[in-house]
Amino acid sequence: MGKLYVIGIGPGGIDHMSLKAQKAIEESNIIVGYTKYIEMVKPLLQNKEIFSTGMRGEENRCKEALDLSKDNVVSLISTGDSGIYGMAGLILEMRKDEEVHVIPGITASSAAGSVVGAPLMHDNCNISLSDLMTPYEDIKKRVKLAAEGDFVISLYNPKSKGRPHYLKECIEIIKEYRKEDIPVAVVKNALREGEEATIVTLKDFNDEIVDMFSIVIVGNSKSYIKDGRFITPRGYNIRGEE
Amino acid sequence: MGKLYVIGIGPGGIDHMSLKAQKAIEESNIIVGYTKYIEMVKPLLQNKEIFSTGMRGEENRCKEALDLSKDNVVSLISTGDSGIYGMAGLILEMRKDEEVHVIPGITASSAAGSVVGAPLMHDNCNISLSDLMTPYEDIKKRVKLAAEGDFVISLYNPKSKGRPHYLKECIEIIKEYRKEDIPVAVVKNALREGEEATIVTLKDFNDEIVDMFSIVIVGNSKSYIKDGRFITPRGYNIRGEE
Ligand SMILES: C[S@@+](CC[C@H](N)C(=O)[O-])C[C@H]1O[C@@H](n2cnc3c(N)ncnc32)[C@H](O)[C@@H]1O
Ligand SMILES: C[S@@+](CC[C@H](N)C(=O)[O-])C[C@H]1O[C@@H](n2cnc3c(N)ncnc32)[C@H](O)[C@@H]1O
Repeated sequence: MGKLYVIGIGPGGIDHMSLKAQKAIEESNIIVGYTKYIEMVKPLLQNKEIFSTGMRGEENRCKEALDLSKDNVVSLISTGDSGIYGMAGLILEMRKDEEVHVIPGITASSAAGSVVGAPLMHDNCNISLSDLMTPYEDIKKRVKLAAEGDFVISLYNPKSKGRPHYLKECIEIIKEYRKEDIPVAVVKNALREGEEATIVTLKDFNDEIVDMFSIVIVGNSKSYIKDGRFITPRGYNIRGEE
Repeated sequence: MGKLYVIGIGPGGIDHMSLKAQKAIEESNIIVGYTKYIEMVKPLLQNKEIFSTGMRGEENRCKEALDLSKDNVVSLISTGDSGIYGMAGLILEMRKDEEVHVIPGITASSAAGSVVGAPLMHDNCNISLSDLMTPYEDIKKRVKLAAEGDFVISLYNPKSKGRPHYLKECIEIIKEYRKEDIPVAVVKNALREGEEATIVTLKDFNDEIVDMFSIVIVGNSKSYIKDGRFITPRGYNIRGEE
């Protein structure tokens, strides 16, 4: 009897993986994942059979991993947290009686947050701008409500060729609710090769530097920039201390 | 010249820490943190000077860590992600010219999510029910907007003696927007000693099992329970595939 580990490797590289994820890979004889993610954990893959699936779709990859896990110990690899816009959900949806273990990882908003300071210190949300499986109207509604609720907002999948204007439009929606001097961070390739981080104000935000390897974090009404770091305070200073 | 690492150790135990966090602790000669968190990483603490501060407040702990970091390599320890309701924010707010590095970790919602399945697969938010620094009216407003926006909702600090009714009231607010058969998970001590996980429906939710070591995750309109796991689909099936 085999089993399937659905692993979040964190932002990239083995330095930000958990020990648990590393042990699961060690225990596995087969590793399944996108070529790019497989590359990131290469030092751990001596003597492993590798199914890197740059070309096939997600359903196929999941089906393959589930099938293989009947007689093998298989690790299916996602970046970040496997449970946040990762592979854990689809695997559990498609699972019949295979043994599946979900192993969490550091998600992109946490990774990017650490690069620019401490933007996520208060209530925060993750929103994906991908309209592949969610109508754009729903995405915009969610951005609006998050802005109204003064959540710190992390935008995953902020941009792709098929929807070049979404990010700009969503930032415009946020501007209706937030002052223009709060910080916005764009972090590309957080904590991995090619890392680039920029902090600007909402007013000066320019979506041109954003691509699909970036995450965009918009502060709440109390967020500010200090010594080049993006900080969101723990609260609203209701006791008037400060 | 010393430096300060602000470390998120993940949900608890060394198995879910990143290698980077472990290396930072290794490099440090002084470790600062709550007694309980210090206990969790004990195997890494041979020959370290330890300032465990069960009793003093957060400001004092941060001040101490910053002061010590002038001449020492210091690790200040938070559970989960140090940047989500952790110590990173306060340190950066109080920092003068000390060298500070924020090291992210796996936050409680990711950890708890992996224990019960894949509840966070779509847009999701973290809300703290602690009113120590945020007016309760604002917390309720945020819960309402998150419910209206169909976010998966992770409630941190869901309960304490001083505010026994908040959780119940917030769940009532969510019920106004969600069908009563969607899943709610209560995960106590996710991925550490004393782990307990329960999945019920919104209708059957009972706040009595929840304490301050628990996190509560409420599904979105599409979340469901399958074979005892809490799954949120990747999207809204807009192409009518299924
Ligand atoms: C399909 S989602 C996968 C998210 C992943 N499972 C996680 O928890 O981070 C892909 C998006 O995540 C974000 N992302 C993932 N890793 C990142 C990194 N290291 N730096 C910046 N953004 C990243 C980008 O917004 C990218 O478009
Ligand atoms: C002050 S917050 C700290 C959050 C932490 N920095 C993080 O990112 O997970 C404390 C709250 O986090 C949640 N929490 C932290 N670790 C947890 C765990 N292992 N299992 C369940 N909940 C946890 C609980 O809701 C607890 O009341």
